[in-house]
Amino acid sequence: MRISEFGGEDALISLIRDRFAGAAGAGLALGIGDDAALIEIGERFLVVTTDLLVENTHFRMDINDPYLLGWKSAAVNISDIAAMGGEPTYSFVSIGLPDIDVSVVESIYQGLADANASFGSAIAGGDTVGSSAGIVINVTQLGTVERAEVARRDGARAGDSVIVTNTLGDSLAGLQLLLKLGLDEARRASTFCVEKHLKPEPRVAEARAAVKTGKVHAMMDLSDGLSLDLARLCAASGVGARVKADALPLSQDLHIASARLDADPAALAAAGGEDYELLITCGASDSAALINAIESVGSSARVIGEIVERSGIVLVSPDGAERPMPTGWQHF
Amino acid sequence: MRISEFGGEDALISLIRDRFAGAAGAGLALGIGDDAALIEIGERFLVVTTDLLVENTHFRMDINDPYLLGWKSAAVNISDIAAMGGEPTYSFVSIGLPDIDVSVVESIYQGLADANASFGSAIAGGDTVGSSAGIVINVTQLGTVERAEVARRDGARAGDSVIVTNTLGDSLAGLQLLLKLGLDEARRASTFCVEKHLKPEPRVAEARAAVKTGKVHAMMDLSDGLSLDLARLCAASGVGARVKADALPLSQDLHIASARLDADPAALAAAGGEDYELLITCGASDSAALINAIESVGSSARVIGEIVERSGIVLVSPDGAERPMPTGWQHF
Repeated sequence: MRISEFGGEDALISLIRDRFAGAAGAGLALGIGDDAALIEIGERFLVVTTDLLVENTHFRMDINDPYLLGWKSAAVNISDIAAMGGEPTYSFVSIGLPDIDVSVVESIYQGLADANASFGSAIAGGDTVGSSAGIVINVTQLGTVERAEVARRDGARAGDSVIVTNTLGDSLAGLQLLLKLGLDEARRASTFCVEKHLKPEPRVAEARAAVKTGKVHAMMDLSDGLSLDLARLCAASGVGARVKADALPLSQDLHIASARLDADPAALAAAGGEDYELLITCGASDSAALINAIESVGSSARVIGEIVERSGIVLVSPDGAERPMPTGWQHF
Repeated sequence: MRISEFGGEDALISLIRDRFAGAAGAGLALGIGDDAALIEIGERFLVVTTDLLVENTHFRMDINDPYLLGWKSAAVNISDIAAMGGEPTYSFVSIGLPDIDVSVVESIYQGLADANASFGSAIAGGDTVGSSAGIVINVTQLGTVERAEVARRDGARAGDSVIVTNTLGDSLAGLQLLLKLGLDEARRASTFCVEKHLKPEPRVAEARAAVKTGKVHAMMDLSDGLSLDLARLCAASGVGARVKADALPLSQDLHIASARLDADPAALAAAGGEDYELLITCGASDSAALINAIESVGSSARVIGEIVERSGIVLVSPDGAERPMPTGWQHF
C-alpha cells in the first residue's frame, strides 16, 4: 500500500511513533507528536526539532531567492522551539547541493545565519554534501525551556479560549501570487503577503511572553494551516473547537491579494499553511491577560473561538450556520 | 565559481565555518570542524552530529535494501558520537519520501530503530515529508560525554602512535563489488565486505574503552577513508604522519575481494571510505595499553604509523620508499 493510500503524513507519523520511537521516560520527557521533543538536562529541558526541505517539493528556486530560502529554513525550526515556550540556542544545518555557484550557497547560509542571529541562536554544525536531486536542506534546531514554562499541544480543555497571533492566510495568498505571477510581479501585487510566505518571523518573543503569564493551557505554531493544526491540537487534547468565521484575523493586504486571486480571504485564513503564527488556548477569563502579554512585545492577538468537549472543528458563520473547517494541506 | 572549482566539500565547510557559524563560547565548546559539536549542559557535554543522505548520490536502492539503509543512516551518526568519546542518546530522523510502499518505509525505520537500540539510543523525533527527488534521509544524533573523556581531532602531537581498529578497505571493496556485480552476486563474492559497506558497526564500546584509559590524544572515525581522514586529523592538529604500508590491517576477505576486483588491497585500505573504524593517536609508550583496552571489548587494534612534525601524510613501503597516501573521496 502506497503512503497516499495509507493515510498520508499523519498516518505515517502515527505508525512511526507507535512502532519505532523511543518511549518517553529515561530522560525523554516528550517524544514524537508535538512541535518539538523535550529531553531532560538538569533543571531545564533541551528542546529539539528538525525540518527537511526538498527542492521542487517544498520550494522552487525560480520563485524564491537563496537568502530567503536560508532564512525560512531556519525560521520554521525556530518557530517550533517557540511553540514549546522555548528559547532557540543552536542550529545544525545539513545541506545537499548540486554543483551550483558558490555565491548561491553563501546567500543561503547568510539567510540561515541572519535568522539565527535575529532570534538568539547560532549555527553550530551540520553536514555539507553533494546532491544529484537538487537542493536539500535539513535544519535541526536546539533550544532550552524552563520546566514550568513548557507549552504542549495536549493541554487544551473544554471552555478554553482559542487565541491566534497577528493575521492568518497571508502566507498562502503570497504563495498563490508567486505561483500565478512569478517572484517580481507577485511582490508588486502584495509585498506583505509574499514576504510573509518567503520570510516568516517566528514568534519567539510572543511565545515567551505567553508562557511567562503561566496561563497557557496548550500552544503550537501554525505551520500547516489553522484548520489542520487546530485539529491536531484538539486531537492531542481530546477535545474539539468552534471557530467564529468573523473573528478570523484578516489583514488588509489579504483582502487585496484575495481580490487579485479571486479567492475568499476567510477560506485562505482557515485553510492556509505556513503562517507561523501561534495558536494558544487558555482559560476564558485569562484571555485578556494573555493577549496583553503578547501585545507588550509588539504583536497583536485575538480570541477566534472556544474549545468544546465534542470532537471536530466547526466554523461558525455570523448568522449562526455551522460547517466543518476548510482543510489545510498534507504532504502526500 | 562552481563548488567543484572552488575546492569541493572541505573548502565549502571552511567558508561556512569562518563566515557563518557561531563562535565557540557561550555554551558552545566546539563548533564546526570535528566529528560532532560539543555544547555545555551542566557537568557534561551534549554531543551533536548530523548526516544527510540523498538517493542516487549516497545510496542506490537497486543495490541496497531498505532495512540496511535505515541501519546505516543511524550507524554513521552514532559513529560520530563515538568518535568524540561520547555515548549516543537520542536520534532525530528527517525523511523525504516519494509515494512509495509503506512497507519500504517500515523497513527503513526498523533499521534505524535497531541500530539505535543496539548502541543505547532511541528515536525521539523527526520530520516526515513528501519528496519528488527520491528518498532523502537526515539523521541528527545526540549523545553525551564527560568533560574529561572528550576526544577531539586536534590533539595529535609529534611522536604519537597512530592506531586504527579492526581492518580497513573492506567497505570500499564491498561497494565496488556491489557496483560491479549487483547485490546478490556481490554478497556471494564477499558477504563480509558487502556487510561492512551496508551494515557498518559503529565502534562505541571501543571508543569508550579508549577514552577511559585517559591516554587518547586525538580521535576520529574513518568515514571518508584513512588517507583523507588522517590528513584532516593532522591538519586540525598542525602535524603530519608517516604510515607504514605493511602495517595497514587487511582482512582475508579484502584479499579475496581484491582479487575479484583486480585491485590492490593496500590501496583500497589507504583510500577506502566508510570503514567507520576509529583513528586514534596517543603517546608511543601508551599504545599497548590503548590497544589492550580496545581488545577488551572485542575488537582488534594496531599501530599503523606515527605522527611527525612535518605536514603531509606519507606512506612508507617495506623497502623504505616513501610516497603520498592514495587519496580518498570528496563529495563534489
